[in-house]
Amino acid sequence: MKLNINGEEADLPAVWWNSEQKMVQLIDQTKLPFLISIHSCSTYREVVEAIMSMKIRGAPSIGATAAYGLAQAINEFWGKPDYLEKVQVAYNDLLSSRPTAVDLKNGLDFVKDIWSVSPEEAIVYAQKFAQNIAMQGKEIGEVGKSLIRENMNILTHCHTGALALVDHGSALAPLVTSWEEGIRFHVYVDETRPRMQGRLTSWELSQYGVDHTVICDSASGHLMSSGKVDLVILGADRVVRNGDIANKVGTHNLAVIANHYSIPFYSAFPDTTFDLNTPTGAEIVIEERNPQEIYEVRGFSKTMNKQTCISVYQDNTRCYNPAFDVTPAELLSGYITPHGILTKEELLRVYSN
Amino acid sequence: MKLNINGEEADLPAVWWNSEQKMVQLIDQTKLPFLISIHSCSTYREVVEAIMSMKIRGAPSIGATAAYGLAQAINEFWGKPDYLEKVQVAYNDLLSSRPTAVDLKNGLDFVKDIWSVSPEEAIVYAQKFAQNIAMQGKEIGEVGKSLIRENMNILTHCHTGALALVDHGSALAPLVTSWEEGIRFHVYVDETRPRMQGRLTSWELSQYGVDHTVICDSASGHLMSSGKVDLVILGADRVVRNGDIANKVGTHNLAVIANHYSIPFYSAFPDTTFDLNTPTGAEIVIEERNPQEIYEVRGFSKTMNKQTCISVYQDNTRCYNPAFDVTPAELLSGYITPHGILTKEELLRVYSN
Repeated sequence: MKLNINGEEADLPAVWWNSEQKMVQLIDQTKLPFLISIHSCSTYREVVEAIMSMKIRGAPSIGATAAYGLAQAINEFWGKPDYLEKVQVAYNDLLSSRPTAVDLKNGLDFVKDIWSVSPEEAIVYAQKFAQNIAMQGKEIGEVGKSLIRENMNILTHCHTGALALVDHGSALAPLVTSWEEGIRFHVYVDETRPRMQGRLTSWELSQYGVDHTVICDSASGHLMSSGKVDLVILGADRVVRNGDIANKVGTHNLAVIANHYSIPFYSAFPDTTFDLNTPTGAEIVIEERNPQEIYEVRGFSKTMNKQTCISVYQDNTRCYNPAFDVTPAELLSGYITPHGILTKEELLRVYSN
Repeated sequence: MKLNINGEEADLPAVWWNSEQKMVQLIDQTKLPFLISIHSCSTYREVVEAIMSMKIRGAPSIGATAAYGLAQAINEFWGKPDYLEKVQVAYNDLLSSRPTAVDLKNGLDFVKDIWSVSPEEAIVYAQKFAQNIAMQGKEIGEVGKSLIRENMNILTHCHTGALALVDHGSALAPLVTSWEEGIRFHVYVDETRPRMQGRLTSWELSQYGVDHTVICDSASGHLMSSGKVDLVILGADRVVRNGDIANKVGTHNLAVIANHYSIPFYSAFPDTTFDLNTPTGAEIVIEERNPQEIYEVRGFSKTMNKQTCISVYQDNTRCYNPAFDVTPAELLSGYITPHGILTKEELLRVYSN
């Protein structure tokens, strides 16, 4: 990912192994979009802490970080008494650092399968896992760029950039790839309540100088109905056999409105997102998150402190906070994958092989 | 409006004249939903300040407050030297306290038309203006309650309650009326970014004990697609000749999604909202508000102060903040007015007479 640090250009992934200092390093996402800060983990425990405190976010990036964390534990404990027990504890600690991300276990198992490797080999495996994710982002960018044309207005939702996918991103990859090749267009970025992932998206776009504007999620209808959106492109958290997608809450809204106004609507994702074992979206359980994310908004009251305000609000009202929604396949124009832009039939065929 | 103040029940409008103490009094909306606080204005200047600082919100309530403010000025200056000049200054001050609300001018002119009245008569006229607005809310409640059935799930957007309409409200009036008559149902309340008017709605509903849940605006698609919404009911800021409505941004989104899932979608409003002079929604100019409303959200950063965060964000990104959107008449199931639930043809007929 291209970074502009105080006017100097750099090119960094979301997370990497610093072989000289034997540290896992990552771009601290909790400080963005305000500060580009590199966080270093000298022990696997610091990697666990980085995942738990959301310094690194996005399921694929979390998986890569966990892989690096386990490789680091192997380096830390190699040759020490109780080596195997200590590495097993590290594996468990890393696995439980974010309970729901399946990529996390994949990352760990990619290293753990080769349990008897040397510390150097463990690092190589972790790097291979991370590079494979980043490579898929690059391929999605190459595949998806055919959809991007000069002067288009493109709407996106949530965060789907390099920070989430080690590098390049999913839905953002085609945009960045096109922009780097000289195509000029404009992106509307949903702020994405309640967690405001739109800020990360706008920050990543600004690193490449991509022209963009942040909007409230509910302004998309106004834009689409007034002909100001030519294409909707977003990611996916899970894509199932019949082509239904689970993605950040609000995706369903955009799909219905885009469909109503005949605006092309695409989802972009790497291989790990496809779930061959689930037949339709109806079987996807929607994660319900803490209502506090909705209560807790600036500006409740100038005369009362935050906690009192939240308590008063909570006494009188309830919040429902689904993290995702399911969009039926018939509302999608197609799927942007490393294997091409696919129809739902092609999607199943590609991933069944 | 029924109020529960520390367990004691009270019944107050949004704004009223206290004849004993010769004061305009109102429920301070900037302290809600955290504190029920009555704000008293002993001079017309204090009324101007109350409107400017948004202690009173909602165009019809602002109109009533301005009428009371002018009546108060007449009382203040009656018999003093330069009486007419002073009242004219008061009129101008009140008129410019919120430049865009047309109800404000209507309220002032309702009192000013009777320029030569006594201080007592001025109060009576202001009261008549306010009571007429409240009465329309009551009628909307009576008309609209036929749509509300036992066990329904109803979705609403923005704030349309008694606080905005002196009493009873527009879209909230049918809900409160039905609830008071013993019908039991559940309301989903959109939080309504960026200004979070959903907090006022949830507060008003909680005063009546109406069962409700606040959601992020983008969760409505998930709810509507899973059969959890039976009716959408919201207000309007302006309704034009062909039945198109301008309302809080996000209304268009809800209308398209409700339409897609064949969910009834109604707008409720008093007479003053109908605009006979504008042919279609295309002629409505959408107010664009300060992007600061989008930038300025809690949780930007724990290590940097708010203003620094906003500056950094603003340097890299732009925000677009339309306050309203226009929903075409064909997406509405009907219009809830003091004159009945109308089709768009009936609407034009009623208001052309």
